[in-house]
Amino acid sequence: MKEQYQSRLTALTNFLDTLDVDLAIIKDPKNVFYYTGFNSDPHERFMALVIDRNKQSQYLFVPSLDLEIAEGDSYVKRIVPISDEVNPYKVLKDTIGEGVKTIGLETKVISLFQQEQLHNSFQNFRYVNIGDFIASQRMRKTKEECSKVEHAIHVIEKVMEEGIKKAKVGMAEQELTAELEYLMRKFGADGPSFSSIVLSGAKAALPHGRPDSKTINRGDFLLIDMGVIVDGYCSDITRTFVVGEETVKQREIYDIVRKATQAGVEAAKAGIAIGQLDIAARNVIKDAGYGQYFNNRVGHGLGIDVHEEPSVHENNDLLVERGFLFTIEPGIYIPGYGGVRIEENVYIDENGHGKLLTSFPTEFKRIG
Amino acid sequence: MKEQYQSRLTALTNFLDTLDVDLAIIKDPKNVFYYTGFNSDPHERFMALVIDRNKQSQYLFVPSLDLEIAEGDSYVKRIVPISDEVNPYKVLKDTIGEGVKTIGLETKVISLFQQEQLHNSFQNFRYVNIGDFIASQRMRKTKEECSKVEHAIHVIEKVMEEGIKKAKVGMAEQELTAELEYLMRKFGADGPSFSSIVLSGAKAALPHGRPDSKTINRGDFLLIDMGVIVDGYCSDITRTFVVGEETVKQREIYDIVRKATQAGVEAAKAGIAIGQLDIAARNVIKDAGYGQYFNNRVGHGLGIDVHEEPSVHENNDLLVERGFLFTIEPGIYIPGYGGVRIEENVYIDENGHGKLLTSFPTEFKRIG
Repeated sequence: MKEQYQSRLTALTNFLDTLDVDLAIIKDPKNVFYYTGFNSDPHERFMALVIDRNKQSQYLFVPSLDLEIAEGDSYVKRIVPISDEVNPYKVLKDTIGEGVKTIGLETKVISLFQQEQLHNSFQNFRYVNIGDFIASQRMRKTKEECSKVEHAIHVIEKVMEEGIKKAKVGMAEQELTAELEYLMRKFGADGPSFSSIVLSGAKAALPHGRPDSKTINRGDFLLIDMGVIVDGYCSDITRTFVVGEETVKQREIYDIVRKATQAGVEAAKAGIAIGQLDIAARNVIKDAGYGQYFNNRVGHGLGIDVHEEPSVHENNDLLVERGFLFTIEPGIYIPGYGGVRIEENVYIDENGHGKLLTSFPTEFKRIG
Repeated sequence: MKEQYQSRLTALTNFLDTLDVDLAIIKDPKNVFYYTGFNSDPHERFMALVIDRNKQSQYLFVPSLDLEIAEGDSYVKRIVPISDEVNPYKVLKDTIGEGVKTIGLETKVISLFQQEQLHNSFQNFRYVNIGDFIASQRMRKTKEECSKVEHAIHVIEKVMEEGIKKAKVGMAEQELTAELEYLMRKFGADGPSFSSIVLSGAKAALPHGRPDSKTINRGDFLLIDMGVIVDGYCSDITRTFVVGEETVKQREIYDIVRKATQAGVEAAKAGIAIGQLDIAARNVIKDAGYGQYFNNRVGHGLGIDVHEEPSVHENNDLLVERGFLFTIEPGIYIPGYGGVRIEENVYIDENGHGKLLTSFPTEFKRIG
């Protein structure tokens, strides 16, 4: 365990050497977790991993109330607690001192306010983006990281299997959601990896709809998109069922989406452009005449965050590499009618082959 | 309902008039909800309420996949969908056009990356912070908003009441968490308002600890800190129990914290400095000789976000006003031993009086 933090930090500091920054401030809580093992959401409080290249020191700044957990969990042992009533940027300045001219920052994370505060502490510094490097480092997952995602997948697939047995005609979407999230905890999840999506009937056409008091009716599509966090890593899976008897059209749509997902998964291998995965899946839907009903990207990276790099959309010409781990989740969403999405999780293994991590069946299934 | 969005937007545009900005971009999803009624987490996708003062127009930019929900929910009816494969900042520029010299931004929300993107679209613009104004607007809650928080409190108190009946010696913290979160959904919550905290024994000394496989043992403190979101508004309540028989010291600590919470609640009224609430509660703990074991602020604002303005810490000299709604949650946390926190929610009503919204008893209680 310790070795992994050491090697991640070494890769980062080697990169910082090429930038010649005086300081690097890593603020994204998930990045802090990646480098230190300390996994915490500080909300609006200040938390950061700080690398002082001049002094060759690494510090973890945490809210005082998290000090005890941080001391237990963090690989970086120089921990600076910050009380609620003090200005964290002053503590930062007092710890680091003078001579800071260039700072490495995650530009997608640092706000204008934080930049202003940093300018109060370190006058006229210049910033360099280190966020893309960190994202690309996190994108290349080790086998151990893949195992953690697989564990999170294993839990959510058990939840799907047990949970759909509870789905009944007349049940509210939010009741079924309650059952599913109960099972997540019961099977060992730390919690859902995102707000669970349980949608029935016409609502299944809403890629980001929310479960509510709508009841599940006979003949409805029932779309379940959910995931869990276990030990800091996420899963994210979608299956769509039909409640009772399906219509010919429902079955047609289902089969097209299933083929699209398979096409996306089968296209996955090292060396091709990420966009090709989107196109492979999208073409199945387009060729079947439903292109206008699939308006979003086909997938996203998955790991410590449920949405991370790479973004699997058709214009992304980044080449697929070993260690990438992402979702493939095409869908057909017909407003006022309903929708189908089938989502798998794929890992690019050490041989550059796409490995399907999800195993829950995608065969058409009636429930309820 | 519509009137509230109109009046909020009017207050905002009046404020923008005083700043003389050409454009305002509101990106915090909770702020977008506050002004439009559209409540959505776009994750890494682009979503913003944009106010074009030159053209006197308001736009809601949303990810394409959320268009249908946005059309149904948003008070602002000029909706611009953005597909995953296009650059949202180009869509923004194409929609707004030339002549943008000053932009109002939430500086705590806009990242350096987003600023760079905006500079590509609107060369050499100057920014002005509008986030503090929005936060102060949201801080002054109407009776209707208070009712929504009260509803969320009502739900979480039912969860607490039913949930603690399920707590048993030998049960893992995460099992009890599963039961509690199941009840949240069952009683109508959209979900937890934050990651539920269920901690027993020495772990109760960790203000931000996480429930895990640790079993609840006889003689443990059992600290439960949880809340729900209902209809876009949050609750946040903490109670601490003793499993089985308490020791004299446990009872002593409990009574001190209970008095501290009461002192904080009783101090709440319009016209005094926010910091006085922290001090009122803190002094009870200090006077009892436990000051070193209470190291964080006494509370925080509560509403659409579970943590919002005002921050209730001793150095905050902002004066309490009608409409403020916040938590009072002092605690004593003794490393390696355990801890107690009792958290109430308070509203400053139209007469400037502090109204205790939480009603779950704080009398010492044994469970299990």
